[in-house]
Amino acid sequence: MERRKTLNEELGRLSVDEFKESIKTPVVIVLDNVRSLNNVGSVFRTADAFLVEAVYLCGITGNPPNKEIQKTALGATESVHWKPFVTTTEAIAELKQQGFLVYAVEQAQSAIMLHHFSPEKNQKLALIFGNEVNGVEQEVINQCTGVIEIPQAGMKHSLNISVSVGVVLWDVYYKMKIKS
Amino acid sequence: MERRKTLNEELGRLSVDEFKESIKTPVVIVLDNVRSLNNVGSVFRTADAFLVEAVYLCGITGNPPNKEIQKTALGATESVHWKPFVTTTEAIAELKQQGFLVYAVEQAQSAIMLHHFSPEKNQKLALIFGNEVNGVEQEVINQCTGVIEIPQAGMKHSLNISVSVGVVLWDVYYKMKIKS
Repeated sequence: MERRKTLNEELGRLSVDEFKESIKTPVVIVLDNVRSLNNVGSVFRTADAFLVEAVYLCGITGNPPNKEIQKTALGATESVHWKPFVTTTEAIAELKQQGFLVYAVEQAQSAIMLHHFSPEKNQKLALIFGNEVNGVEQEVINQCTGVIEIPQAGMKHSLNISVSVGVVLWDVYYKMKIKS
Repeated sequence: MERRKTLNEELGRLSVDEFKESIKTPVVIVLDNVRSLNNVGSVFRTADAFLVEAVYLCGITGNPPNKEIQKTALGATESVHWKPFVTTTEAIAELKQQGFLVYAVEQAQSAIMLHHFSPEKNQKLALIFGNEVNGVEQEVINQCTGVIEIPQAGMKHSLNISVSVGVVLWDVYYKMKIKS
């Protein structure tokens, strides 16, 4: 069984134009006051990998072009659509108006555990991820359709925000684009 | 429906002693020459969240105690068992001797796509993640039981290594500990 590593030219990577024209996963990632530019860049790279519709950068969250973001985004800010918002509340209002279901990813009462979350195939879905220390603001959670929680078993119960985006996006991408 | 954020004291977080005594997910994360201490710390936090058996730090991968690792691990180096190895080859040999199936996470010919990977519930499983630029070394891949690939659709096909650990661990944790 051949196990040769796949060459870059064999990966079927999309060009910027092909990315922009391709049918996306109907998901918008909303960053609610994310402090670390490193995390923002990493989120862009994950958004590129799972073909998301857009990344919304709210409040203090940094915007491209930015050297620190670029260092972890590795060019994904060129492919993935993004939009800045002064407040997360404004982003939610716009998303709801466009027919998105809006979920915060947090540890909260009545949250749906990630493995119980079953999005419809073409459902427009916005996923809000919060600040490294404070998480998603309670006020923001109160405006959402619901809350999704990643089950955690250890000592910390505090995944890094760019890791959380990876975990939830993979789960949703699988359920929306691969499974059926 | 109450959506109050869960208080820290309500999260059911384990103490260091409870963590060490708890029944783990039978998974060892192997880091093959990972350069960024930031990534190492983040992997510890993810390993804590999904209760993994141990993290093996191979080659140039940094070891705790280390300020940079600590900054992203947030204490998870106290709970999660870890062990340093001069080479990844030595780690693989020891793991195989202990009955672990050893999979590299890479883009390679004949790789199993992550969603097709079905580990047995109590199967001892080692998952190797590679260097930020070079990935898992071909020589290391050749020593593995097989290769697991995260399907990626965008322009880059290059998830951050700590994000990849999150994606694969969540998937395996769900299949091994939650699903059945």
